[in-house]
Amino acid sequence: MSLLVVGTVAFDAIETPFGKTDKIVGGAASYISLAASYYTKDIHLVSVVGDDFPQDFLNVLKNQGVDLAGLQIKKGEKSFFWAGRYHNDLNSRDTLDTQLNVLEHFDPIVPESAKSPDFLMLGNLVPAIQQKVINQMTKRPKLIVMDTMNFWMDIAMDDLMKTIAMVDVLTINDSEARQLSGEYSLVKAAQKILAMGPKVLIIKKGEHGALLFNKDEVFFAPALPLEEVYDPTGAGDSFAGGFIGYLAQTRDISFDNMKRALIYASAMASFTVEKFGTERLIGLSQEEIDNRLQEFIDLVDFDITFA
Amino acid sequence: MSLLVVGTVAFDAIETPFGKTDKIVGGAASYISLAASYYTKDIHLVSVVGDDFPQDFLNVLKNQGVDLAGLQIKKGEKSFFWAGRYHNDLNSRDTLDTQLNVLEHFDPIVPESAKSPDFLMLGNLVPAIQQKVINQMTKRPKLIVMDTMNFWMDIAMDDLMKTIAMVDVLTINDSEARQLSGEYSLVKAAQKILAMGPKVLIIKKGEHGALLFNKDEVFFAPALPLEEVYDPTGAGDSFAGGFIGYLAQTRDISFDNMKRALIYASAMASFTVEKFGTERLIGLSQEEIDNRLQEFIDLVDFDITFA
Repeated sequence: MSLLVVGTVAFDAIETPFGKTDKIVGGAASYISLAASYYTKDIHLVSVVGDDFPQDFLNVLKNQGVDLAGLQIKKGEKSFFWAGRYHNDLNSRDTLDTQLNVLEHFDPIVPESAKSPDFLMLGNLVPAIQQKVINQMTKRPKLIVMDTMNFWMDIAMDDLMKTIAMVDVLTINDSEARQLSGEYSLVKAAQKILAMGPKVLIIKKGEHGALLFNKDEVFFAPALPLEEVYDPTGAGDSFAGGFIGYLAQTRDISFDNMKRALIYASAMASFTVEKFGTERLIGLSQEEIDNRLQEFIDLVDFDITFA
Repeated sequence: MSLLVVGTVAFDAIETPFGKTDKIVGGAASYISLAASYYTKDIHLVSVVGDDFPQDFLNVLKNQGVDLAGLQIKKGEKSFFWAGRYHNDLNSRDTLDTQLNVLEHFDPIVPESAKSPDFLMLGNLVPAIQQKVINQMTKRPKLIVMDTMNFWMDIAMDDLMKTIAMVDVLTINDSEARQLSGEYSLVKAAQKILAMGPKVLIIKKGEHGALLFNKDEVFFAPALPLEEVYDPTGAGDSFAGGFIGYLAQTRDISFDNMKRALIYASAMASFTVEKFGTERLIGLSQEEIDNRLQEFIDLVDFDITFA
């Protein structure tokens, strides 16, 4: 089924305890589209870059089946740039530089061909811009998934709450869930956030896995313990892409299928962190993906039956 | 099968964000014995208390089938006492007071009747004292499980390494695994620690679950997301007690059965944190335990099959 992805396509410069990169390709929508493309092919991208952005990477997206009709390429302008340094534990980071560039005046224009997607994935962006995309839909998508972050809770809470109320699934991390709800217990936090509108909440805990909540149920997807984690950048976006890509492929938005989707999501995130940037998400084979999924299955496979 | 438990039986005074207690009963061996007693009945305790320790709690242990022949009661002396305050996230704590009292000269004497247990659980204690207990065994137990902590890595590393080399299963938390191995990746840390002697390593991650490693395999047991966590004291000990109690009940020390044991262990830990001290571990019904196990089963139950 068709999937519309909105979010940044950009440059990152990353330092981790294991090395550093120059300007490399990043951005939420890059990771989301790549991760989703392993499950579904009818993907439309809405984003903006400057004319400094490498055509090579756009070709990679095209080859993965991503339609770029909604990608604005601004002549004489520069792409969004973020630089950051991860701490030793990889769970926290400092922003070293942020250059909004083309993002400063980004007005998302959804092409006619992409105005009635079955699935809509709103990558982390200004909440008002996420809303602008929803408002261009000519029919309500079967499912709208939204990612956001603490930054918008700090500076655009009203807009954020309005946007959250319009979506079906919200994905945030554990500290953001605590900030948004004012509750320390994630169980209580989830119930408060679900009362804000979404039917489903995903709380991402990085190396500690992810929780899936609806009003009555909870599911936990583990993260795979990895020998090497090089770069956590894009893990949450790859997770979101794997999640919505799998749902679009299977055309099933039941809670049971979302559980499966959470494992597919976790698998994509586990690939991403093994190399810098988007490198590991390019050219994955079906066999690699299946083997990775099997590792997740084995990781939590136990057999308890009651007498 | 018979189980010998060695560890502290003591007093704690606890402050958490949810309240504080006066002196209440605690100690590693108290939690271990209680948790194990729901699975196996032939339990022997080796520990020491002063004559200030409440007979009521000793009766609770006796009623749960714990043989107290190896519990030394020191006339005119005081029981070990620890006071601590947990931070808001409940994952870290400050020690406010430690009074060794009877523990200062504790010489564990294993009664004849308990010198050939099938299972031996060494609760967190001075490593040299854990070793003294192993050396009193008249035959090698089927399985020796040892808990320890960072404190001994700081002040008694040589003794600790000797003791670790004598046991089958080591349980420590994630930061201790990193300290002991010098590796940040838990996968690498586990392999280094297994090279120190134990066949199996359990890494406890508190609210983030627990990992079980042998040389070739890894298994993850989630923690149950709880509405209320009142007091994490004793969670790790209850976990250890549930783990070895289930193994003793089932008489099966295969890796597959240890996976199941890890879920039983997690269930016992999840009860413990719901109230202060040992309160929640007293008087559990089979139905409560079965329901809790079912929650763990449901929490990670997904169904992925490959075409």
